[in-house]
Amino acid sequence: AHPAGGRPRRAVVAMATPWRWAAAALLLAVSAALPPVRGFSLPLQRPADCGGDRYFDISRLACAPCGAHQRPSAGGSSCVCQPGYRMVSSNGGSSVVCEKCPENMTGVTQDGWNCITCPKGLTSEGTCECPNNEILVERSIDGILLDEAFCLHCNGSEQSFSASDASGNRCVRCEQTFINASKSCVCSSPNILTGGLCFSADENLPPKGVATVRFAQLGITLTSAWFLKNLQSSASACWLYSNLTACQALGNMCVMNVNSLSYSSTDACGLFQYIYVNTARLGVAHSVAFWRHNLPWLYYGDRPGLASQVLEANNFPATFSFKGTDKLRFIAASFDAAGNFLKWQSLEGGILQLCPDTQTKLNAAYAFGTTYQQSCKIPVSKILLDFANPIFYDLFLEYNGDNGQQYLWDVPVLNLNLQYSEMFVNQGSNMNSWLLTRRFFLVDALSGKENDLEKLPRVLRIASKITISIRLASHSKRGTIYPPLLTIAYTDVLVENPETQSVMVSFSVSYEMNQSEAQVQTDITLGVLGGLAVLWSLLKTAGWKRRTGSSIIDLQTVLKFLLFYAGDLANVFFIITVGTGIYWLVFFKGQQFVSVLLPLPSQEEDFVTYIACAFSLKALQFLQLLVSQLTIDIFFIDWERPKSRVVKGVEGEGVIKSAAAPVSIWRTYFVANEWNEIQTVRKINPLFQVFAVLFFLEVVGFSNLALMDSSSSLARSSESYIAPWSRILRFGVSAAVWLAIAGLQIVFFSVCYERFVEDKISQFVDLCCVSNISVFLLSHSCFGYYIHGRSVHGHADTNMEEMNRNLKREAENLCSQRGLLPNTDGQTFQMSISRKMRLHYDRIHETLARRRGPARLLDSSVNTFEQSTRAYNTMNKFLSSFINHAHKEMDYIVKDKLLFERILGMEFMEPIEKSLFYSDEGQSFSDVLYYGNETTLLIFDILFFSVVDLASQSFVLAAILTYLQQEMFRFIRSTLGQKNLASKTLVDERFLI
Amino acid sequence: AHPAGGRPRRAVVAMATPWRWAAAALLLAVSAALPPVRGFSLPLQRPADCGGDRYFDISRLACAPCGAHQRPSAGGSSCVCQPGYRMVSSNGGSSVVCEKCPENMTGVTQDGWNCITCPKGLTSEGTCECPNNEILVERSIDGILLDEAFCLHCNGSEQSFSASDASGNRCVRCEQTFINASKSCVCSSPNILTGGLCFSADENLPPKGVATVRFAQLGITLTSAWFLKNLQSSASACWLYSNLTACQALGNMCVMNVNSLSYSSTDACGLFQYIYVNTARLGVAHSVAFWRHNLPWLYYGDRPGLASQVLEANNFPATFSFKGTDKLRFIAASFDAAGNFLKWQSLEGGILQLCPDTQTKLNAAYAFGTTYQQSCKIPVSKILLDFANPIFYDLFLEYNGDNGQQYLWDVPVLNLNLQYSEMFVNQGSNMNSWLLTRRFFLVDALSGKENDLEKLPRVLRIASKITISIRLASHSKRGTIYPPLLTIAYTDVLVENPETQSVMVSFSVSYEMNQSEAQVQTDITLGVLGGLAVLWSLLKTAGWKRRTGSSIIDLQTVLKFLLFYAGDLANVFFIITVGTGIYWLVFFKGQQFVSVLLPLPSQEEDFVTYIACAFSLKALQFLQLLVSQLTIDIFFIDWERPKSRVVKGVEGEGVIKSAAAPVSIWRTYFVANEWNEIQTVRKINPLFQVFAVLFFLEVVGFSNLALMDSSSSLARSSESYIAPWSRILRFGVSAAVWLAIAGLQIVFFSVCYERFVEDKISQFVDLCCVSNISVFLLSHSCFGYYIHGRSVHGHADTNMEEMNRNLKREAENLCSQRGLLPNTDGQTFQMSISRKMRLHYDRIHETLARRRGPARLLDSSVNTFEQSTRAYNTMNKFLSSFINHAHKEMDYIVKDKLLFERILGMEFMEPIEKSLFYSDEGQSFSDVLYYGNETTLLIFDILFFSVVDLASQSFVLAAILTYLQQEMFRFIRSTLGQKNLASKTLVDERFLI
Repeated sequence: AHPAGGRPRRAVVAMATPWRWAAAALLLAVSAALPPVRGFSLPLQRPADCGGDRYFDISRLACAPCGAHQRPSAGGSSCVCQPGYRMVSSNGGSSVVCEKCPENMTGVTQDGWNCITCPKGLTSEGTCECPNNEILVERSIDGILLDEAFCLHCNGSEQSFSASDASGNRCVRCEQTFINASKSCVCSSPNILTGGLCFSADENLPPKGVATVRFAQLGITLTSAWFLKNLQSSASACWLYSNLTACQALGNMCVMNVNSLSYSSTDACGLFQYIYVNTARLGVAHSVAFWRHNLPWLYYGDRPGLASQVLEANNFPATFSFKGTDKLRFIAASFDAAGNFLKWQSLEGGILQLCPDTQTKLNAAYAFGTTYQQSCKIPVSKILLDFANPIFYDLFLEYNGDNGQQYLWDVPVLNLNLQYSEMFVNQGSNMNSWLLTRRFFLVDALSGKENDLEKLPRVLRIASKITISIRLASHSKRGTIYPPLLTIAYTDVLVENPETQSVMVSFSVSYEMNQSEAQVQTDITLGVLGGLAVLWSLLKTAGWKRRTGSSIIDLQTVLKFLLFYAGDLANVFFIITVGTGIYWLVFFKGQQFVSVLLPLPSQEEDFVTYIACAFSLKALQFLQLLVSQLTIDIFFIDWERPKSRVVKGVEGEGVIKSAAAPVSIWRTYFVANEWNEIQTVRKINPLFQVFAVLFFLEVVGFSNLALMDSSSSLARSSESYIAPWSRILRFGVSAAVWLAIAGLQIVFFSVCYERFVEDKISQFVDLCCVSNISVFLLSHSCFGYYIHGRSVHGHADTNMEEMNRNLKREAENLCSQRGLLPNTDGQTFQMSISRKMRLHYDRIHETLARRRGPARLLDSSVNTFEQSTRAYNTMNKFLSSFINHAHKEMDYIVKDKLLFERILGMEFMEPIEKSLFYSDEGQSFSDVLYYGNETTLLIFDILFFSVVDLASQSFVLAAILTYLQQEMFRFIRSTLGQKNLASKTLVDERFLI
Repeated sequence: AHPAGGRPRRAVVAMATPWRWAAAALLLAVSAALPPVRGFSLPLQRPADCGGDRYFDISRLACAPCGAHQRPSAGGSSCVCQPGYRMVSSNGGSSVVCEKCPENMTGVTQDGWNCITCPKGLTSEGTCECPNNEILVERSIDGILLDEAFCLHCNGSEQSFSASDASGNRCVRCEQTFINASKSCVCSSPNILTGGLCFSADENLPPKGVATVRFAQLGITLTSAWFLKNLQSSASACWLYSNLTACQALGNMCVMNVNSLSYSSTDACGLFQYIYVNTARLGVAHSVAFWRHNLPWLYYGDRPGLASQVLEANNFPATFSFKGTDKLRFIAASFDAAGNFLKWQSLEGGILQLCPDTQTKLNAAYAFGTTYQQSCKIPVSKILLDFANPIFYDLFLEYNGDNGQQYLWDVPVLNLNLQYSEMFVNQGSNMNSWLLTRRFFLVDALSGKENDLEKLPRVLRIASKITISIRLASHSKRGTIYPPLLTIAYTDVLVENPETQSVMVSFSVSYEMNQSEAQVQTDITLGVLGGLAVLWSLLKTAGWKRRTGSSIIDLQTVLKFLLFYAGDLANVFFIITVGTGIYWLVFFKGQQFVSVLLPLPSQEEDFVTYIACAFSLKALQFLQLLVSQLTIDIFFIDWERPKSRVVKGVEGEGVIKSAAAPVSIWRTYFVANEWNEIQTVRKINPLFQVFAVLFFLEVVGFSNLALMDSSSSLARSSESYIAPWSRILRFGVSAAVWLAIAGLQIVFFSVCYERFVEDKISQFVDLCCVSNISVFLLSHSCFGYYIHGRSVHGHADTNMEEMNRNLKREAENLCSQRGLLPNTDGQTFQMSISRKMRLHYDRIHETLARRRGPARLLDSSVNTFEQSTRAYNTMNKFLSSFINHAHKEMDYIVKDKLLFERILGMEFMEPIEKSLFYSDEGQSFSDVLYYGNETTLLIFDILFFSVVDLASQSFVLAAILTYLQQEMFRFIRSTLGQKNLASKTLVDERFLI
């Protein structure tokens, strides 16, 4: 850019012709003379504000007075001469010069430039006036201006047949119907003059029509100016002359009356039906039984059950696929109200969509497979402006025939406002009583005009709800559909204040198929799996009875059964919903030639109910799991024995006494602490899970797979139409992502992380062994787990040097193996203990003082701690002697579980005499931790996530609440678990940090 | 609904008149006789497909042959008689009867019903033909049909002044200009006939115009049919007669030439300027210096610097506020191309917005304070359809005067395509060289028509980019704005295939204010704080030098200084960006009468740079923190002494020996384990932080505060317009939410959680004391922390009974206090150790074997473990004797820190002779943990979140990545920290679980 002010003034120099020089110089002079720029402001004046003696100056945008003997013109933007004055010159605006006409010539010619003598008086504009059927002659035929104008009657006799034209200036041939009826240009009685046509009374005229339109929603019936003018003449012209345009106009009037049929009235539709029935001899068009020759095709006939035949007896001849860009090529023949054919019009470009939007989004409505919904509020004023003249559409669906020729297939219309014998037959869901029609309109601002066709209508009728239903044909070739159905609902609006009134309009395209088969299959699966769940729950209850050591069936047993059943039923519901969700996802999104379509939103209710059931039952199971984990019995058996007697000098006496050296409690603290920490360890990282799910759904865009369209891409451009969500697909996508990521995590943790980084559970077992402490766990009355931790070195309460030496010896295989049985490695066992053993255990336990208190180490212990210490020692002694087979009456044997016992998770043998130890390589003691119940936790998380998402339609909120839920239950589990641990093992809670 | 088939047939019975009965019966009969419904299909035929001898049957929607001697009419939907045939009857469609005319009457009358003898030959339609200036007479003046038509010359002599009308049927008065120029109806030479007007050669005509239009973007100059027809006549009529419409039309043609001014051409604008300059005597309209009377106001004059005067010298007289619903009431005077005033039009309703949208969203453009952006692609075909005739707008902004009268304020237009002396003066940013204009159009499909005004244009000109800039006036009353500026850029489109071509159009409303003041303030703050940061960093470096015990300034010192400076500078940038962000958030969203507006997106670059700087510097600091934490020296001093000698029987000899009973290492394991666990404990829960931030931003809707509109509500309805994001506001909102939630978390954790649930740090200190273990920490060479953990009971390696008893005694205050000094409680200290002490420490440490290996307990220890055990014992002995003041040459004294030492975080005294222990109530040893560096971590998280968000504009992605970042660094910190702990304390890594 050149510097400021450096604009090329040399251009001035380059100018050659004088006028250019002058212009530039003047421009410069004017600019230079200007004062600093002030703000400009002017009053707002509208042409209508100027009043009767001022015109609107379009240059100044303000009113200005007209000159003498002048008044503003009709538009208001210039002046014209007052009556009795002729123009002398006129240059637009107010530069008009008028001159008074002489006394003998009071009139002004129609062009306003000359004065003339009028024969029969003046109009208000000052021109001459003639009677209606006469013409005004001001000039001779060759243009010579007459001094005196005269009125002339046109010669209407045979051969000439002339009459005054519309402007009253010239004689032209009169309407042919006049000539036909009366052989003259006068339609005298008994001939009938209607709508500008003349009909002979001799002819077989149709019955007299009723020119009223009924707006049922408002309860208004008004006489329409348009009907008054055209109904009878159209009907007669159609009936007598088979005039095509007249027939279409009559049909349109019937459509404006929402196709309502009633035998008691000769309204537009009554007249149409009369003509339709009485012209059967003319035959039908295109072999369509309902399409009378010369008449528009309005109805599909009223035979009961016909609608279902029309809609479902025949398939549309073309097939559709999801891949590629299959379009529904709708095409409509459009007519104006007078019955003229306008053009064939593709529906693309938003012809039926009243809501404004970009072309791309509007056209997305006709991409096959895209469920489309659009709705908005439109001001009545805009509708009146854009749809001043109604347009009528006959809708077809286009397809290519085998020979390359384009064919059309009719699209029936279900008009919800149609009344058949005063009943709204189309509003029910019974297809057999429907009366299908053909023609429809979007906005009718014509029939509601009461007296003057130029004025605003009193009532406006708008197609406020248009739905195109595409229904997949059942039991036929893939990609085949039934003929589409257009459902339309009109709204009547009483026009009072168009600027403030507005109408809600909507347009949608929906895809449906018969879902009964899928429904039946779901029901069958539910039944079968539900039955299996009962059996499985019974088995689990039996196993539970064995483990609790009781054998009577009491209320508790029934409750336990119900709880088991709840859990299993939750799994059944979960399997079915996940299966259904992923089925729809894969089959709907993956198909090429269309064979399945999604259930409609209303058909998704069952599915949502299933998810709700699954969630609530799973929640029950989860709570039960939590409670049972929080009440287990646990004890840490310390195998360490005092190494020696400690030599003590008793003060003041010099006597040396020896006492047993205390065994350090710190190993027990260490083990208890670690146990406390693995309470809520899970097989997956639940937070990573939540974040990863959120990442894939929201950032990568898997959520786009839940849109009800045919695209299976993960990205949508911001310019393209975004289809509505399907709840089933949403669940399918989110469940699939959850399961996939959880699967990957489990594989990663079990294959990589736990092998190469750390495995908390194995670490704990190793720790037990190194610290010379066994864990004795009772999850049921007579069932539990045992982790054998007796040090192979005999003692572990030693210094670093010896610890390291021991570990090294073990690494070099210089000592015995860790197992409970000699020369084995098995450290973990399941136990079925005998009732006697349990009773003994309980007896010791009863002596324990329950300690409660604040958690700071600083506080001193409570009074009863000696009692509890004694109980701890007793229990330690009892359990270690039990493991050492020291109690002959409470011995145990070690055996392997049977295959079936493993599979069913129960024990077949009852521990009557001896307790039973089952070796357990799978570290099943993690069943009393979060770790061993990953499935339940995961399913609960998935269901929680999905339920929140279904309720809120927001993956972000679902993720946040799932996190909070996890944290809350983890906090409950670890806090209460810690309390339980402290009370059962007698380890001070203050050491569980 | 009634049952299927039960439709009320009784209506049939109720019918009375015979025709009704007949109708119903027939309808029934027809229905009953119908075969099962087949699918209906018909071939698609268009009127254009019917060819020369068939017409389009609008009833059947198919082509059908015309009758004998007939051909299709012009529209194609009916038949007409061939030339030489007259109509006998006609009922529309093909029901026309034609009859050959007799030999002597070869012509047909214009109405087609009669045969007539023609005087001078026939037209192609078979009617009579007359020369151009003659009229055809078929009927006498009173309508009698003549046998022979004749052609008649209109009388153009004075007084009559008649000529043939457009249809050639009648003589009417001819154009006034003909009469003026020649006193007849002929415009004979030397008079000039142009555009249907006749100008006398005597008169002072304007120069001859050039009827070309230049499309600069395409490099095309074409002769426009419209200009050819109207340019000269408009200019002449405007010049000679001051015809208002002609002047407007001339102005419009100048506007269609994008107002380009050039002194070397007499194009439309040249003519306009000629008339403008030469009619100065007429004066101006509304006191606006640039608005000549009778002419449209097109330019603001070309005085250099005028644009900035127009735009900034005066304020708009009305003020605006954010609260309430202040609207920008733009109003435009609209003209058609011919210069007729159409109406005053409010811009609401999307007048200037070419992209379709709902009324609500379109009108949001004019809600004061809402930055509005809209853009889309529009097919050229739609533009040609919707904007066939160009409309020209003069834009004003409306306001209410004091007297209630509505006033208008002119809105200048900056036309980017305008060329002034062949230069695009408006495309630079230099306001002084701008040439402002007034009138503009949206689409011009007229000037690009080359030969025929009825055909498609060759070139289309579209206002593809319209921007309305609202600029806040500086230094004046709040809520005052400068006059708005409309910037417009036109795109020229060569029309080749309208169906496939499309144009990108956009419309925006932007709000600006002078940001230089804010910029200066930011710069000042940056300078001041940056200087302080240097000072502070110098101080920290000095403190660091003291702590490392060296005093020379080497490269390391400089690097360290730079690292400190990076951290401090990061804080400075963070403070400035957060301050700026929150400032804009509060002041922009909170203001009532507008006093600040947001920086434009282009002005946000500085801000983004600041954030990037803050983030990268903070990342540097964070990494340095991580590295320094991973290399600290730590040792656990075990105070436990063997209680006695153990009495051992040496095998095989029977001799009883006594050896020192080993001190159990398990307490050390326990403490090391706990220390390992608190490495990455933070003052807040970072995950809850992320989720809570996400919740407030995305679910509660705080993100809506970052929209560039005046609303400060958190919810936006889906129907309302969503303004674009402001990056500054986005950062402001997210930083504010982060800080608020972090603050709440810190308060919650320090006030509630750590007091009532658990405080990991205090727990650790307590644990040290209970387990009789001290922690000796060196974070720098000569500086570190000491946690005194010597048990008040003398020993802790005992059984549960004694542990409990000890705790109880302590609770009952029966023993001494825990502090290092007698009778004090102070357990935590900062240490400045002397270099001698450090050397001794290092010497022992050197003997340590660095052990590395897999983490499973099962593995045996490495070979050198005895060496390390010895080193451990030596170190334990050395440090405990050091604490016990046993080394006279390496003694220490305990003192309190000075206030300034505390504030500055450095030590004034150098530990030369004796080491210095500073008592430290604040547990500042957590500085070597995550816990003590919460500020750095939090700021790093905030900046990371913001950087991701600014790059991706997605809070969800930012949250996910922030989580991953936290997890990654936590993993690194804990893994490497564990390795460091194991190697420094000699505790086997396998026990750190």
